[in-house]
Amino acid sequence: MSSESTTVNYPTEFKGFAVADPEKWENPELISFAPKKFNDETDSYVHIEVETNGICGSDLFVIKNEWSSEPMKHLKGSYSPKGQIVGHEIVGKVKYASPSAEKDGFNVGDRVGVGAQSYACLDCYECKNNKQQYCAKSVGTYNGLYPDGYVSQGGYASHVSCSTSMCFKLKDIKMESKYISPFLCAGLTVFSPILRGIKQAQEENRQPKVAILGVGGLGHIAIMLAKAKGCEVTAISRGYSKKEDALKMGADDFIATSDKETDWSKFERKFDLILNCATSTTSFDFGKLLPSLNVYSNFVSVGLPEKDEILKIYPIQFLRNGCGISASLLGSKDEAYELLKLVDEHNIKPWIEEIPICTLGVHEGVSKLSKGDVKYRFVLTDYHKFFGTGN
Amino acid sequence: MSSESTTVNYPTEFKGFAVADPEKWENPELISFAPKKFNDETDSYVHIEVETNGICGSDLFVIKNEWSSEPMKHLKGSYSPKGQIVGHEIVGKVKYASPSAEKDGFNVGDRVGVGAQSYACLDCYECKNNKQQYCAKSVGTYNGLYPDGYVSQGGYASHVSCSTSMCFKLKDIKMESKYISPFLCAGLTVFSPILRGIKQAQEENRQPKVAILGVGGLGHIAIMLAKAKGCEVTAISRGYSKKEDALKMGADDFIATSDKETDWSKFERKFDLILNCATSTTSFDFGKLLPSLNVYSNFVSVGLPEKDEILKIYPIQFLRNGCGISASLLGSKDEAYELLKLVDEHNIKPWIEEIPICTLGVHEGVSKLSKGDVKYRFVLTDYHKFFGTGN
Repeated sequence: MSSESTTVNYPTEFKGFAVADPEKWENPELISFAPKKFNDETDSYVHIEVETNGICGSDLFVIKNEWSSEPMKHLKGSYSPKGQIVGHEIVGKVKYASPSAEKDGFNVGDRVGVGAQSYACLDCYECKNNKQQYCAKSVGTYNGLYPDGYVSQGGYASHVSCSTSMCFKLKDIKMESKYISPFLCAGLTVFSPILRGIKQAQEENRQPKVAILGVGGLGHIAIMLAKAKGCEVTAISRGYSKKEDALKMGADDFIATSDKETDWSKFERKFDLILNCATSTTSFDFGKLLPSLNVYSNFVSVGLPEKDEILKIYPIQFLRNGCGISASLLGSKDEAYELLKLVDEHNIKPWIEEIPICTLGVHEGVSKLSKGDVKYRFVLTDYHKFFGTGN
Repeated sequence: MSSESTTVNYPTEFKGFAVADPEKWENPELISFAPKKFNDETDSYVHIEVETNGICGSDLFVIKNEWSSEPMKHLKGSYSPKGQIVGHEIVGKVKYASPSAEKDGFNVGDRVGVGAQSYACLDCYECKNNKQQYCAKSVGTYNGLYPDGYVSQGGYASHVSCSTSMCFKLKDIKMESKYISPFLCAGLTVFSPILRGIKQAQEENRQPKVAILGVGGLGHIAIMLAKAKGCEVTAISRGYSKKEDALKMGADDFIATSDKETDWSKFERKFDLILNCATSTTSFDFGKLLPSLNVYSNFVSVGLPEKDEILKIYPIQFLRNGCGISASLLGSKDEAYELLKLVDEHNIKPWIEEIPICTLGVHEGVSKLSKGDVKYRFVLTDYHKFFGTGN
């Protein structure tokens, strides 16, 4: 399925890096593929010429097929490529806009962003109540099966073709594309529960106090966003290796869970939110973490571990402060625009390592991320140079 | 430690049914005991001559010592009885009120109620924000260790001596004492999370839809209270044996979890709250229950299983609707008074079986409750006759 030439024959052919076999996840191969078919008379959709795309932990779970007990989804696709192109922190320019998309304000040449969700119906209860990420008809930006049998393809590609329903307009945003990319999945995913935690604290006239558990791709952005929203921020990590960075990102305090000297009693009922940015929860000591939540406050996970991992907890650990454990999925449209405005106005930039897109670059990105060897987010760049696009 | 005479030498001596050894939990023995010492100059406290007391599942966990990995707490008491008297759904009359208690509006002869919590400081953040049940200085009505070394003693007794901080005035309540008793623990415990579920639904202008899981001592009251507060109520039970009763209590719909024909898809994202009134969660199919919660809604447990039981859940089960799992402890003072007003105005009565208090009666009550052989709450009555009180 590999292709010698890297130049794209747009609009009939896109190119991108796909994994067809989870055993070969470390070596995505360059393929040519047909875009999803949309209907110009009914669909508000765009073709986006990609400029930058962040590498997200989700990419690994999908190309390793660790979230599913079924074979990889591309095998179910009808006319989509027989491989999966991941990537859902996409910034690029509109190359084609359907008539409806134009009516919706998307025009050729506009810069736009797409996160982990590329379709919402915009008509259901959730969509109409600013919870589009929970739309029952939601389609993921990659690895999502459309009703027409196409499996959606992500941003490790020359182009992405998608509905405008969850496509964000970046016309008013000054920030460079490579810095915007990580906000579109990682940023939005942490921002949504942070906003809810803040709301809960404000209802009681408290300055919100937020703990960010895990200083990685998601966590480092969470620290910056919570701080920008006026929270007192405590970063929680296993050891002290990331302490200095966390404080630079804006954390007011730091807890190393491996430090047996840590006096947890001083954190009792302190936090309005513990945002768990780590994927696995098996190593957590909930007996220490949960009592540090305020009454009725929540421990919210934004990462999802592999399918067989079970969360175990003693019910008594919830009861003393009526706290809760929950998860949060991506964010809504309003939250996305609030986030983009916030980071642009405050010039909040994720800490990124740039990787020019190419076969070796993609390989390195996924391999190093899998080892946790990144500070703190990889962003694939130089798309135009590699794919011969940008004209 | 047993005593032949059942007549009390008040005020120096109270009598009650105590368990000193968890092996003998089925046979609480009649003992004489000294009340807790309060300070008339500083403490707002009362002696209550008990009239009725409900038998709660918590009573069993404590006399069987199943919530603790330590020996029974009475062994730590300094001048409290060497046995544990349980019971925390107490209605009775004030027999003595300290000067401060009188200033606080408690007078000899007043009818009052005490639930599972008999002390809150009324001065901390939680107390001042209508969350007295989470006061860090809270003392349970029984099995609670006071700073002075007394282990609190409950309502299977002629009298209860306690602070007025969590003692509820029943002057304006017309309902008979035996019907009030179960509201003081079971009722308040389910009412508090129901109120929060209703608030969450109302914030989105939805009629609240509540599922009550487990139709027993707590669940049957929860059905009635949720209905009285205007919720659409679905009762969930293992089989169909309690269906007819649940509908009589006010449930609009009924789900039997053991019925493989149940079409769970019709409950998808239906509930603003699933209130788990069962103590053990090990038999639950969270894969069916959690998707029936609305976005951001909660599965709230009000029962507490024995200490070694672990709640197990796959994180993906939270993620699809951003739902949460939490627990809720008792209720606040405001919630208690709102509850008492509600049940009195609507004449909502728990379904009770009366047991005149005596050695055999107490034995039967705890034994039958342990087997689940109760419809739906035992209430101990006829205290004056047995203890020679009421003069």
